[in-house]
Amino acid sequence: MIKFGVIGAGRIGKVHAATIAANPKAKLAYIADAVPAAAEALAKQYGAKVATVDEIVKANDVDAVLIGSPTGFHAEQIQAASNNGKAIMCEKPVSLDVANIHETLKVVEKNKSTLMIGFNRRFDPNFAELERRLRAGIVGDIEIVTVISRDPNPPPPSYVKGSGGLFRDMMIHDFDMARFLMGEEFVVVQALGSSLVDKGIGEAGDVDTAAVQMQTTSGRIAVITNSRRATYGYDQRMEVHGSKGMLTAANVHNTTVQLHNGEGTQGDPVQNFFLERYGQAYTNELNTFINAVETGDRNPKPSGFDGLQAGILADAATLSWQTGKPVKV
Amino acid sequence: MIKFGVIGAGRIGKVHAATIAANPKAKLAYIADAVPAAAEALAKQYGAKVATVDEIVKANDVDAVLIGSPTGFHAEQIQAASNNGKAIMCEKPVSLDVANIHETLKVVEKNKSTLMIGFNRRFDPNFAELERRLRAGIVGDIEIVTVISRDPNPPPPSYVKGSGGLFRDMMIHDFDMARFLMGEEFVVVQALGSSLVDKGIGEAGDVDTAAVQMQTTSGRIAVITNSRRATYGYDQRMEVHGSKGMLTAANVHNTTVQLHNGEGTQGDPVQNFFLERYGQAYTNELNTFINAVETGDRNPKPSGFDGLQAGILADAATLSWQTGKPVKV
Amino acid sequence: MIKFGVIGAGRIGKVHAATIAANPKAKLAYIADAVPAAAEALAKQYGAKVATVDEIVKANDVDAVLIGSPTGFHAEQIQAASNNGKAIMCEKPVSLDVANIHETLKVVEKNKSTLMIGFNRRFDPNFAELERRLRAGIVGDIEIVTVISRDPNPPPPSYVKGSGGLFRDMMIHDFDMARFLMGEEFVVVQALGSSLVDKGIGEAGDVDTAAVQMQTTSGRIAVITNSRRATYGYDQRMEVHGSKGMLTAANVHNTTVQLHNGEGTQGDPVQNFFLERYGQAYTNELNTFINAVETGDRNPKPSGFDGLQAGILADAATLSWQTGKPVKV
Amino acid sequence: MIKFGVIGAGRIGKVHAATIAANPKAKLAYIADAVPAAAEALAKQYGAKVATVDEIVKANDVDAVLIGSPTGFHAEQIQAASNNGKAIMCEKPVSLDVANIHETLKVVEKNKSTLMIGFNRRFDPNFAELERRLRAGIVGDIEIVTVISRDPNPPPPSYVKGSGGLFRDMMIHDFDMARFLMGEEFVVVQALGSSLVDKGIGEAGDVDTAAVQMQTTSGRIAVITNSRRATYGYDQRMEVHGSKGMLTAANVHNTTVQLHNGEGTQGDPVQNFFLERYGQAYTNELNTFINAVETGDRNPKPSGFDGLQAGILADAATLSWQTGKPVKV
Repeated sequence: MIKFGVIGAGRIGKVHAATIAANPKAKLAYIADAVPAAAEALAKQYGAKVATVDEIVKANDVDAVLIGSPTGFHAEQIQAASNNGKAIMCEKPVSLDVANIHETLKVVEKNKSTLMIGFNRRFDPNFAELERRLRAGIVGDIEIVTVISRDPNPPPPSYVKGSGGLFRDMMIHDFDMARFLMGEEFVVVQALGSSLVDKGIGEAGDVDTAAVQMQTTSGRIAVITNSRRATYGYDQRMEVHGSKGMLTAANVHNTTVQLHNGEGTQGDPVQNFFLERYGQAYTNELNTFINAVETGDRNPKPSGFDGLQAGILADAATLSWQTGKPVKV
Repeated sequence: MIKFGVIGAGRIGKVHAATIAANPKAKLAYIADAVPAAAEALAKQYGAKVATVDEIVKANDVDAVLIGSPTGFHAEQIQAASNNGKAIMCEKPVSLDVANIHETLKVVEKNKSTLMIGFNRRFDPNFAELERRLRAGIVGDIEIVTVISRDPNPPPPSYVKGSGGLFRDMMIHDFDMARFLMGEEFVVVQALGSSLVDKGIGEAGDVDTAAVQMQTTSGRIAVITNSRRATYGYDQRMEVHGSKGMLTAANVHNTTVQLHNGEGTQGDPVQNFFLERYGQAYTNELNTFINAVETGDRNPKPSGFDGLQAGILADAATLSWQTGKPVKV
Repeated sequence: MIKFGVIGAGRIGKVHAATIAANPKAKLAYIADAVPAAAEALAKQYGAKVATVDEIVKANDVDAVLIGSPTGFHAEQIQAASNNGKAIMCEKPVSLDVANIHETLKVVEKNKSTLMIGFNRRFDPNFAELERRLRAGIVGDIEIVTVISRDPNPPPPSYVKGSGGLFRDMMIHDFDMARFLMGEEFVVVQALGSSLVDKGIGEAGDVDTAAVQMQTTSGRIAVITNSRRATYGYDQRMEVHGSKGMLTAANVHNTTVQLHNGEGTQGDPVQNFFLERYGQAYTNELNTFINAVETGDRNPKPSGFDGLQAGILADAATLSWQTGKPVKV
Repeated sequence: MIKFGVIGAGRIGKVHAATIAANPKAKLAYIADAVPAAAEALAKQYGAKVATVDEIVKANDVDAVLIGSPTGFHAEQIQAASNNGKAIMCEKPVSLDVANIHETLKVVEKNKSTLMIGFNRRFDPNFAELERRLRAGIVGDIEIVTVISRDPNPPPPSYVKGSGGLFRDMMIHDFDMARFLMGEEFVVVQALGSSLVDKGIGEAGDVDTAAVQMQTTSGRIAVITNSRRATYGYDQRMEVHGSKGMLTAANVHNTTVQLHNGEGTQGDPVQNFFLERYGQAYTNELNTFINAVETGDRNPKPSGFDGLQAGILADAATLSWQTGKPVKV
C-alpha cells in the first residue's frame, strides 16, 4: 500500500486524489495547500489529513509525494522529498530554469529517488497506442513527426508574464511528445512566434501563435504548431510519417452524433480542455507511477531527464524566436 | 466503330450522347425526340442527324440503339430495335408491366439481340468496387444486405400517378442493387409504406416513405429503406454484413472541405442528385455496353433478366404494401 | 444517503457496485448471490455485508434494491422488494412472459414503488444526445428510425435454449431504443429470421440473424437488424431520418489512431462488447436512478411500462417470424 | 473560338489537349514536340496539325499558346509567344532562375500579353472551395496555414540533378498554395531538409524530406512539409487556422468503400498521383484560361507575378537549407 502525500489541492490535485482513492494499491494520507480550505475539503472527501509541505515530506507514513503546486515550487519540493527518501511524482515543468533542473536532478540522483514527471499526454490511450506501434516498427523508419497543439482559449496576459512564455509553458508538452514519438534527440531548433490572438500577450513579451521545426542528428524532422486559441475545442493531434507508412491520432469529439441537413454533415465539437480530454491519461499516468513505486522500479518514464530535455528545447525555441536564428542544442 | 441511334434527347440522352462522343470506338449517328428542337440541338452539338424512331431502328448505318424515351415506350422500342437486328441499351425499367417485360424478352431472345438495361448504380465506382470484393470473398458468406436510398426532393403528385408507384419507380434500382450484391434470388418480400413527406402523394395512391425486407432461399436477408426527401442530399449507401466482415460504401460529399468551430465539425452536403452522383457511373455503364457490342458479347449485365427480376420484386413489394401481407416470389 | 442491496454479484453486479461506491449519495450495504464466494468478494471490496435475497428485501437499512440476478428471478424479486417498500432498479427484461410482466407491474403500481428498468443504451452519451436533439426538433418530424445492433460473438446454443430467443433476449434492447427514439408506439411488426452464424442455434429453435420492420399509427417506420456475430466488434448504430434532416450515432472505436499505407487507411476495431462500450451508460443509468430515489421521483425512465412494451414487441416479432405473417400490436 | 497551339505532347500536353477539344469555345490547331511521333499521335487524335514551336508562335491562326515543354524552355517560349501577340498558358515554373523570370515578365508586360501560370492546385475543387470560404471570412483572420504535400514515389537521383532541387521543383507548388491561401506575402523563410528516402538524392546534392516555416509582415505563419515518398498515396492536405475557426481539406481516396473486420476499419488508399488527383483541377484551370482569353481579361490568376513570388520563396528556402539560417525575402 503506497501512502501518498499530495501537495496542491487545485484542479490537478483533485484529479490525482481521485485516482489514488480508486487504486487499491494506494492510499491518500495527507494533503497540503496554500489555501487551507482547499486542502481541508479534499482531505475530508477522501478521509485524509491536512498537513504542511514540510510535514508531508518528513512524515514516516508517507511513501510518495505528488507535487501539484505552482511551477515555482516544484524544484525545491522535489529536492525536499528526495532528501527525505520519498518517491516523487511532479507535474511538469520541473522548473522554468534549466540550471535549476540540473541541480534538482543531481539531488534526485544522489538519493537514488524515484522521480516521474507529469507529461500526461504520453498516457493518453490514443497517443500511447500510436507510440507503441511506432516502436513496433509499423511505419518503418521515422521521417517526419507533426504535432498540432492548440488550446481552446488564451490565458490572460497577467498569467503569461510569470509563465516563462509559450515555449516553456505550453509547447513544453509538445517538445516532450516530439521526443517521445521520435525516439531520438533533436540537435537544431528553429522557432517563429507572433501575437495574433491577444495583443496583450504580445505586450507582455510573449507570443500566442508559434511554429517550431527541429532536426535530429540523423536528419529526421519534427514540426510543432501552437495557438492559444482554437474556437473548435482543444486541438490535440499527432502524426508520424515513416518509410513504411503514416500513423495519425485525431481529435476526440464529444459524441459520435452527426447532424445531416442542407448545411452539410455536422459532428460534435472537439472535447474542450485538458481535464476532459486527458482524464484517462491522468489516471493511467498515476497508476503507472504507483506500479513503479510498488515494484521498486526507480526509473519510470517520463523521467527527470525527460523533463530536462523538454526544458532545454523550450529554452532553445525561446532563444530562436527572440534572435530570429536557429539554435543548436 | 459502333454507330448509335439515340432515342430521347432529355437529361439522360444528353449524358449518354457525351459518352458516345468521347469514346473512340463509338459514333453518334442519329437522334430522335418527340420534341424536334431537343433532337436538333443535340444532333448539332455532336454532328449527328435527326431521325424518327422508326428510321433509327431500320437504319443500315445504326448498330446500336440507346433508348432513353419515357418508360411507356421502352418495351415496344426494344422489340422494334431487336426485330431490326440492333444491339439495345435501354434505360430502366423495361416496363411497369411484368407480362410486357416477359413478352419483350421473348422477342429479344428469339432474335438473339444484345440487350443491356440501364441500372446505372452497378457502375458507380464505389458500389462496383464493393461488389468486386464481395465476389472475391472478402467478407465470407453474405448474411445481411442493407440499402439506404433517399432522393433529395419528392416529385409532384402528378408525376407519381403515372409512375407505377414508389416501389416500381424508385425502389426498382434498390431491388436491382440488392440482387446484385446478394448474388442470390429473393423468395419472400415484406413491405411497409407511408405518405409522410407529401400528403398529395398519399392521395395519389402512392407512398413516399417505405421499408422492404426480403429473404433468400438460404435465409440471407436484405433491408431497403426509401424516402422521397432527404434534406442533406441524395442519400445512397450500401452495406453488406458477412461471416468474415462488413463492407460499406458511404455517401459522396461535394468536397473534402470541413469547417471546425464552436458549432462542431461541418463537412459538405452529400452530392445532390443522380446526374452528379452517378455521372461516372453513366459513363462506365455505356462504355461497358460499347465494349460488349464491339467484342460480340451478347449478354452484358445488367441483362433483360435482371430487369425482369427487379420488376417482379417491385410488384411483390407493391402487393405486400397494399395487402399488409408478405408476398412469396 | 441511499442504502443499496445488490442482488447478483456477476459482471453487471460488479459494474453497478462500483457506481454505487463512487456516488456520494449512495452506499452499498448488502450483496446477495447464489455463489457465496462471489457475494463475499464483492462485499469485501466495498465494505458491504453478504445477505440472502429475502434478508435484503426486508432489511430496514436498505432503501433500494438493485436486481442483477438471472432473468427468471426478476419478476418475483421485483414483487418482493416492492411489497417491502423498496425502490427497485432491475436489469432487463422484467420477464420473458408478458403476462408475468403485467402481474408484476400491478404489484408495483399498488405499492406505488419506484421501479426503473435497466435499458442501459438510453444512457449512452451518444444515443442520449441523439435523443435529446430529436426531442428538441432538430430533424423535424421523425420518418424512419434505423437501429443496427450486432454482437461480436454468438452465445453457445445451450444458452439460446433458455433465453426466450433472439427477439426477446437480444433485440429487446433495440425495441426499447426504437420506442425511445421514435416517441410513438408501434402497431404492426414484421420479422424475418435465419440461422446463418451457427447451425446449432437454428437447431435449438432460434435465429442468429434477423430483421424487423415496424410502423406506428401515424405511419412512421422503424427498421432493426440483428446479428449474433460481427467480426469487427460490437456494432451499435442508430439513425433517425426526419423532415428536416438526419441524426446518426456511429460506432465507438478503441482509439483514434489510423495507419495509412499501401493497403489503405486503417482505423481501430469497434469497441468489443457491452462492458466497455456501455461502461459510461451503466454509470449514468444508475446515477439517474439514485437521483430519482433521492428526489422522490417515482417514475424514472425507462419505466416498468417501457419494459412491458419492449416485451410485447419482442413477442410480436417472435410470432411474426414463426408464422411468416405481420403481427398487429 | 480560341485557336490553340500546344507545345509539348507529353502527359500534361495530352491532358490539356483533351480539355481544349471538349471546350466549345476552343480549338486545338497545332501541336509541337521534340519527338515528332508524339506530336503526330496527339494531332491525329484531335484533328490538329504538327508544327514547330517557331511556326506556332508566329501562326496567324493561333490565338493562344499552351507551353508544356521541359522547364528549361519555358521562359524563352513565353517571350517568343508574347512577342508574337499570343496569349500564354505556361506550366510551372516559369524558370529555375529568378532573374530569368524577371526578364520574361518584363517582355510580357511590355507586350501587354495575357499570361497564366499552371499552378493547377488552385483549381482543385476542394482547395478552391477552401480558399473561397477563407476570402468570405468564414474563419476570420488567418493565423496558421499548414500545407502537407508528399509524393507517392521519389524520382531517380538522375532527375533530381537537373530539377533545381526539391524546394524549386516540388515545394514550388506549396509555396504558391501557401501564398494563395494566406493572401499576404511572406517575409522570412526557415528551411530544414534531409535525405532520408534515397541516399542517392542526397549524393546528388538535394533533399527528399523537408520542412519550411514562413512568416508574413503581420506575423501570420505558414508551415509546409514535403516528402518524396508516401506509401499511402499522393498526400495533399491543406489546413487554415483562423480567429473564428479552422478549414481543412482532406485527402481524396479511391472509393468510399470500407472493410470492417477484426483488423479494424480499412478505407481505400489515397488517389495515387497528380493526373488522377488533379484531373478536374487541370480541366478547371485551362477552362479558366480560355474564359480569360475569350473575355479579354488580361490578368488571369495565377499570374506571372505569382510564378515569380513562388520562385523567390523557393530560392529563399534553398538558401536557408544550405546555410542553416533564416532568409529574409
